[in-house]
Amino acid sequence: MPVAVFDKSQIKDIQSQPDLRNMPIDRVGVKGVKTPIIVLDKAHKQQHTVATVNMYVSLPHHFRGTHMSRFIEVINEYRNQLIGFPKMEHLLARMKEVLDAEEAHIELEFPYFIEKEAPVSKAKSMMQYMCKFMGTQNDEHQCTLEVQVPVTTLCPCSKEISSYGAHNQRSLVTLRARFTGIVWIEDLVRLVEESASAELFTLIKREDEKYVTEHAYENPRFVEDVVREVAVKLSKIPQITWFSVESDNDESIHNHNAYAVIERDLSHERDGIAG
Amino acid sequence: MPVAVFDKSQIKDIQSQPDLRNMPIDRVGVKGVKTPIIVLDKAHKQQHTVATVNMYVSLPHHFRGTHMSRFIEVINEYRNQLIGFPKMEHLLARMKEVLDAEEAHIELEFPYFIEKEAPVSKAKSMMQYMCKFMGTQNDEHQCTLEVQVPVTTLCPCSKEISSYGAHNQRSLVTLRARFTGIVWIEDLVRLVEESASAELFTLIKREDEKYVTEHAYENPRFVEDVVREVAVKLSKIPQITWFSVESDNDESIHNHNAYAVIERDLSHERDGIAG
Amino acid sequence: MPVAVFDKSQIKDIQSQPDLRNMPIDRVGVKGVKTPIIVLDKAHKQQHTVATVNMYVSLPHHFRGTHMSRFIEVINEYRNQLIGFPKMEHLLARMKEVLDAEEAHIELEFPYFIEKEAPVSKAKSMMQYMCKFMGTQNDEHQCTLEVQVPVTTLCPCSKEISSYGAHNQRSLVTLRARFTGIVWIEDLVRLVEESASAELFTLIKREDEKYVTEHAYENPRFVEDVVREVAVKLSKIPQITWFSVESDNDESIHNHNAYAVIERDLSHERDGIAG
Amino acid sequence: MPVAVFDKSQIKDIQSQPDLRNMPIDRVGVKGVKTPIIVLDKAHKQQHTVATVNMYVSLPHHFRGTHMSRFIEVINEYRNQLIGFPKMEHLLARMKEVLDAEEAHIELEFPYFIEKEAPVSKAKSMMQYMCKFMGTQNDEHQCTLEVQVPVTTLCPCSKEISSYGAHNQRSLVTLRARFTGIVWIEDLVRLVEESASAELFTLIKREDEKYVTEHAYENPRFVEDVVREVAVKLSKIPQITWFSVESDNDESIHNHNAYAVIERDLSHERDGIAG
Repeated sequence: MPVAVFDKSQIKDIQSQPDLRNMPIDRVGVKGVKTPIIVLDKAHKQQHTVATVNMYVSLPHHFRGTHMSRFIEVINEYRNQLIGFPKMEHLLARMKEVLDAEEAHIELEFPYFIEKEAPVSKAKSMMQYMCKFMGTQNDEHQCTLEVQVPVTTLCPCSKEISSYGAHNQRSLVTLRARFTGIVWIEDLVRLVEESASAELFTLIKREDEKYVTEHAYENPRFVEDVVREVAVKLSKIPQITWFSVESDNDESIHNHNAYAVIERDLSHERDGIAG
Repeated sequence: MPVAVFDKSQIKDIQSQPDLRNMPIDRVGVKGVKTPIIVLDKAHKQQHTVATVNMYVSLPHHFRGTHMSRFIEVINEYRNQLIGFPKMEHLLARMKEVLDAEEAHIELEFPYFIEKEAPVSKAKSMMQYMCKFMGTQNDEHQCTLEVQVPVTTLCPCSKEISSYGAHNQRSLVTLRARFTGIVWIEDLVRLVEESASAELFTLIKREDEKYVTEHAYENPRFVEDVVREVAVKLSKIPQITWFSVESDNDESIHNHNAYAVIERDLSHERDGIAG
Repeated sequence: MPVAVFDKSQIKDIQSQPDLRNMPIDRVGVKGVKTPIIVLDKAHKQQHTVATVNMYVSLPHHFRGTHMSRFIEVINEYRNQLIGFPKMEHLLARMKEVLDAEEAHIELEFPYFIEKEAPVSKAKSMMQYMCKFMGTQNDEHQCTLEVQVPVTTLCPCSKEISSYGAHNQRSLVTLRARFTGIVWIEDLVRLVEESASAELFTLIKREDEKYVTEHAYENPRFVEDVVREVAVKLSKIPQITWFSVESDNDESIHNHNAYAVIERDLSHERDGIAG
Repeated sequence: MPVAVFDKSQIKDIQSQPDLRNMPIDRVGVKGVKTPIIVLDKAHKQQHTVATVNMYVSLPHHFRGTHMSRFIEVINEYRNQLIGFPKMEHLLARMKEVLDAEEAHIELEFPYFIEKEAPVSKAKSMMQYMCKFMGTQNDEHQCTLEVQVPVTTLCPCSKEISSYGAHNQRSLVTLRARFTGIVWIEDLVRLVEESASAELFTLIKREDEKYVTEHAYENPRFVEDVVREVAVKLSKIPQITWFSVESDNDESIHNHNAYAVIERDLSHERDGIAG
């Protein structure tokens, strides 16, 4: 495209015009921005991945609009950088500064790979887990980590009442946690996988399939059991100050899903414990 | 399938077993159940549609599981019935009773058709809007109506700074409202459509396209403008006790979206007004 | 919106302008149009539902564009009408006429409900199946019916090698068929359900859950088995002239799916048989 | 999970059992496998990304099932490797060998980033494009590249008939091509972007917004125009032996889309040209 002659000083800044409707906006910003980032990897130090980003700020009642391009400029500064909870705090402070806002929110969702070993054959393969960093900063700062862990659940009722077999299915467990200090994605994934009837593998051989099938049959779990098992374990981790855990079962005997959720604020119980 | 001989009394009720993990469950139930329902239609009295239903109850810590089939039995009782805010109250009370729960939640999402007339040619066609009833009942009862309204937004900044033209796009406005008395889906849709740069039509002729194009150009709106316009109008409707309004722009100049949301609790301002 | 004074004769018809790029267009039209329709119901004669419609025509190289609003006018003529294979033929002929095209295509996708009875308790509930009518008309006319049937598949390998249990999961079977005469959606759904390890129900009681669990365990099926079972049965129905059948397993032991497809043209084998 | 004692020789190979239904399967395999790969990057030599992989083989009528784990073993061999058309040929040959099949198919879909410069401010940002390698190998070998390019389209009719303004929207152009030699993703993206009313940018400043708005207004395009422009350009590239191009407009004045597609086999025209 040949570029037109252009005098930048003549362009009006409509967004900065005053607004008389007396209606502050809770959140305004951009959704679905894609950017390459790096995240901490417990086994290999760093992992390259691609984040889908939502960024919002609060807008006082007297401004007509926010400056959408500034969100992109901020996220561009963090392109290909290592993003974790400490960097999230800088990122949100930078959003507040650049957008001149009292409150900033950000969500970065990204696929994360963990290498797994099949239980008997020890065959190795990669499993992908969708993860999300979510942060909010006003006078205070709060950061939440989400991991989505697909697992197998085998129905305790079906096992109990049937002469043989038991229906089982893929279930998606979504765990969100706030914490002080460091909590690894790998450890949260592990905690969830150990709370289900069986964990999933990308590569299993016949000897593993036998093992996994029998393991699931020996460990039947309702959606209620899964969220309770996870909740009990999370409650015992002193760094965790808040969590929610959902389990969403693609029931193999229905065309609808079974679902359960527990949310728990532990911040009062943690007072005087974590730094 | 030939049916096996079967003695019902021998089947254990695993779900009713005691649970010792001391972990109550906030919500447990079924997701994605499909059922035909009827809803009130301002122009034609009634409209047949199909709802996708999520139903949850709270589960005390001492029970191991809920009875998933009872949710289906309850929603079956309301199949092909007229569902509105008064019927939602019965439905939730029935869930609490049948599931023996202190709290019940339900969401029914359904497509809703409104016949529209093109602005100049007066050609008639149907527009579909996704709607949702959401209700929660414990000691108290609360019901929320959601309508999703696709509209056109034309960028005020692009119009102002460009010698000709202005970028515009499809935007999805999601309005949620709680209210006393009756509020029609049709009226909420109208209110949103009048707050955008232009409304959408399924069928328009060339003379309508001219009208709609010029109308949008004469009424530029940021996402911020759309949510504010809707919020100002909702604040003036005395039956409304709470609302939220989001606008999500499929920006025609970006591959990401622009987004804004306002949420407002008017229940204190309404005290002593609505019955 | 107040309507502007407007002289229709002055509006240019850009679409009808000649095009010099010498490039005919295979298909051009509208996607995602929503319209209420009626379809034949084996048990209750008629069923109201909502179709999502794609409509395309071929465009000769010498025209610049098609007239998009005419597609909407045609589908509006069929709104709330009974759509089946005979009506599809009229609809496509009407498209060719109104759009002045040599070839017309249409796809109407709609949810369809069938009432099912649980195998032991006989409890009744509704199951929804996504269906599609697809048609193409040039000098010839061809119509295809698609039904999507969710079922249970239980892994024969897992059953064989494990001391107890067997992994199973929800699988989506997509069947497409062309035929002469009448073939009921209900009969195709039944044929698929009888080819899987077990069929799904929206409502089952404990006695049904026992039955379904044991039935699936007694009838293990790979994805390969399901598509073969369906293919063998379809090949024996004399009205069927062509079919394809896919099975897509949401594997409960993996986070990826298992998939198989068979497509078979029986038109030569049918010569001299069907009318 | 503690591992059970296990004698591998005792496990039956159910998949290798003979099948008597006389029904060969066209394609059977795995869907939705995630794996990290590397692809060629015109500007930076290599780019790390994550592929979603579907892999299928044909299955002769006399085998009951394929060996699903072998697909994973094959794709694992190519993990973190540079995948392009030459490597696709090896990969498909390896599938045929390991799965003992006459025909193999693979699809690898991945997000691909290109750095773009805004037209006036020269501000840099990343745009993500979804791409796909698709290959089939039996006695012959065929490979297809797909790129999805979001662009702006501005309606020529709306511009012509309106006193000011013109409706425009985000449109997704999907281009598939088969070719001999090397064709860069970057060049196909560029070719599509130059065929639309305007290209998209992740980051633009006000001076760019003015430029993009006016550029789109000066270059109105129907969906028909976009696919024709792309088709004319592709026809002139001697390496291209086959292509298809679709344009799918999120119409800003409707809640449905406008769509067009051209497919063209140039292999006969290319005979004696390409090596």
